[in-house]
Amino acid sequence: MVTDGPEHTERPAALAFSTENCQVAAAMRVLGERGTIVVLREVFNGVRRFDDIQQHSGLARQVLSDRLARLVEHAILRRVPYRPEGGGRARLEYRLTAKGLELYPVLAAVADWGARHYASPDGPPVELAHRGCGAPVHAALVCEAGHAVEDPREVAPRPGPGARRRAS
Amino acid sequence: MVTDGPEHTERPAALAFSTENCQVAAAMRVLGERGTIVVLREVFNGVRRFDDIQQHSGLARQVLSDRLARLVEHAILRRVPYRPEGGGRARLEYRLTAKGLELYPVLAAVADWGARHYASPDGPPVELAHRGCGAPVHAALVCEAGHAVEDPREVAPRPGPGARRRAS
Repeated sequence: MVTDGPEHTERPAALAFSTENCQVAAAMRVLGERGTIVVLREVFNGVRRFDDIQQHSGLARQVLSDRLARLVEHAILRRVPYRPEGGGRARLEYRLTAKGLELYPVLAAVADWGARHYASPDGPPVELAHRGCGAPVHAALVCEAGHAVEDPREVAPRPGPGARRRAS
Repeated sequence: MVTDGPEHTERPAALAFSTENCQVAAAMRVLGERGTIVVLREVFNGVRRFDDIQQHSGLARQVLSDRLARLVEHAILRRVPYRPEGGGRARLEYRLTAKGLELYPVLAAVADWGARHYASPDGPPVELAHRGCGAPVHAALVCEAGHAVEDPREVAPRPGPGARRRAS
């Protein structure tokens, strides 16, 4: 619950529920290793080949290899053969699956926050543009009734269908 | 560039630009350690005290202590004194700063994706609700012209004001 009001004396309601099946924790077990989001940045930006990703991201080869394998294992990326421009044997590049494409709001939200707080004085090096109209694209909170949620304090977590009471 | 069309023979445009000042990488240097997003989940859910966060998240005490210190150092969380219910000396709890609150779209986007792909059969344990109307809240892509971006393929990255050519 995003509040910053007077001191509460009640225990937070969330503590009554288990986190063992938490979807945030589950997602972060897949995405939360160092470098994984940067690898996804590269592929979302059209950089798909191992050597290109390695040089552009600066990740160590073994780290990159490990992160790519995990993203393929989780069907976020898939390997597609290509034939190098200069000829030679077919090699593999990495493309987003439908499940991987669904991570774009995560990447956009990280980019928005990073641009706001960690950009160099000249601004962020990349922005996302709407192909249809050219306007910058951001990640925003919206509710299913169609309201834009301007302030996170308008949002309250509540138990979902998979909520389980915590053994105490 | 989010495309999945015919084999390209051109080099990806992104490779011409440096990633040294990338806002995604900068953000992930702060957020990308194991457990950090789970710690933020706890605080966004109103769980603010060290022992509560530790027990609810299952993170090791040393890991949690380290993550909290880094989040405070980056002014994402701030420490606020409280007096325990049973009396005794004042202790500290962790609250989101304005900069921390701005991470809610990141958390919501991770939760959405996790709920879609990693929820248990009965569904996710937590959902986000709009206080105003009760409808579920999600992270969505929107452009500054007000268009909802339904498909990530409608988004193209482009060089921003801080783009720097890469030394080759």
